Amino acid sequence: MSLIVVNEIKKLRELVRDYRKQGKTIALVPTMGCLHNGHKSLMEKAHSVADVTVASVFVNPIQFCPGEDYDRYPRTLEADKIVAESAGLDIIFAPSVNEMYPNLQKFSDLTMVTPPYELTDIMCGKSRVGHFDGVETVVTKLFNIVQPDFACFGMKDIQQLFLIKKMVADLNFPIEIIPCPLVREDDGLALSSRNKYLSETDRKLALSLSKALFAIRDFFKAGITDTKKLFDTGLTNLDKNVELEYLEFVDFDTFKPVDSVSHNTICAMAAKVGNVRLIDNIVLEV
Amino acid sequence: MSLIVVNEIKKLRELVRDYRKQGKTIALVPTMGCLHNGHKSLMEKAHSVADVTVASVFVNPIQFCPGEDYDRYPRTLEADKIVAESAGLDIIFAPSVNEMYPNLQKFSDLTMVTPPYELTDIMCGKSRVGHFDGVETVVTKLFNIVQPDFACFGMKDIQQLFLIKKMVADLNFPIEIIPCPLVREDDGLALSSRNKYLSETDRKLALSLSKALFAIRDFFKAGITDTKKLFDTGLTNLDKNVELEYLEFVDFDTFKPVDSVSHNTICAMAAKVGNVRLIDNIVLEV
Repeated sequence: MSLIVVNEIKKLRELVRDYRKQGKTIALVPTMGCLHNGHKSLMEKAHSVADVTVASVFVNPIQFCPGEDYDRYPRTLEADKIVAESAGLDIIFAPSVNEMYPNLQKFSDLTMVTPPYELTDIMCGKSRVGHFDGVETVVTKLFNIVQPDFACFGMKDIQQLFLIKKMVADLNFPIEIIPCPLVREDDGLALSSRNKYLSETDRKLALSLSKALFAIRDFFKAGITDTKKLFDTGLTNLDKNVELEYLEFVDFDTFKPVDSVSHNTICAMAAKVGNVRLIDNIVLEV
Repeated sequence: MSLIVVNEIKKLRELVRDYRKQGKTIALVPTMGCLHNGHKSLMEKAHSVADVTVASVFVNPIQFCPGEDYDRYPRTLEADKIVAESAGLDIIFAPSVNEMYPNLQKFSDLTMVTPPYELTDIMCGKSRVGHFDGVETVVTKLFNIVQPDFACFGMKDIQQLFLIKKMVADLNFPIEIIPCPLVREDDGLALSSRNKYLSETDRKLALSLSKALFAIRDFFKAGITDTKKLFDTGLTNLDKNVELEYLEFVDFDTFKPVDSVSHNTICAMAAKVGNVRLIDNIVLEV
């Protein structure tokens, strides 16, 4: 089966209905396009668990905050098709903004899906107010349009992954969420569509994020579990020209901050390199 | 097929999966139990459009505001079964609170589905702050558990019907919402589970709501379209011992207030009779 690109919800529903009738399972990979090897690994995972794989390519306006990069976010559908095809994807769902939000005057006119305040007033949600409302709303829409059995989310966006898993549990979506490992360049930089924004100089500076996280991991492996000490190690290894937004240690199951690494702890950070905001994280497993 | 009562989400999903495999369509009637002829008419409608009919019976704690009647809301499952059976219902889904909200410490820990503020800061939503968030959240859960093709909602809860229709459109639920007419006693009182709270005296006083609405309709049929004049007619016909909360004229398609009756206008009211809050409405069709 070769790759199909679908722009209309109605058309996608028809396709999905046919697959269902044939008893086929469906896996969804929600993306904003500008696909890289991280996305590709999600698609390959999707391909391995379900009969039919669908990726959405949609730069979702309602998850961008005022002043963020919605307008300049890269739209690269032709290149995306090549990545998708190489991953064995069956369908790209690439709707227009008007197809997803018909006749929308303002975002506040929409029914929204909102995660608990306590879990969004931390980490990325703290600076990106309303971001996760926009994410959960569009993911709910995609779930209802595609009706997948599985949905693959990358661990790069670790707070998003946690909140989507919680959303699926809280709202009883009949969908299994499959977390997929973060993918890095050979030099350590976490893959991100936003890496495209980096100048050559900033690209080098951006390495500082993973360097700090790896230093923390090494320190942890050497027996340090106190998160204050681990935080200091991270800070020491972060280039002074990188503007740290947060560096947090949270429990993977609750997303509550931890004083000491125990069970599965996520060490996550966001930082600005030039005017590009990047995120990265590592899992510290006991 | 005789009536089955299911308490567990897992068990309900299994039943639904089997029906789906047999190519059967499903209609859902969400209720809080204490079933009356209004609910029965919803079930009969459901029965007429789908192969399998499911009604949920669940007093949803998160749609009650502090100080409201959650604790004393009537739970009458045995009687409900008789009504359901007489309406040809196939399945009652009657989960416990813990089944729907496992290990819940506080409502603010939940992922919520929230209608737009502008559409909830009017009519019932104005006094029942957060009510419609609770309604949309539980209805989303029920939609995801039952995965119906159709869902029947009564026009008695007209703001709820409007908001659910909007939620289904905004979030792309693959479900057709079927509005069902409000049902009245012979003397005009709108059927409501809360009528059980009324003393004999208050029961008579409660007739004042429909009397006021019918007076408005008569006045409208006589050619008066100015909603200020119609409002005054309603007020004149309302017993002085009934405490009016609101009497509003809104467009059925937008729920925006109208100065003059045009197209389909909803005339809706809420009022307290003793300490019982009642709602009622009529449609003024041009």
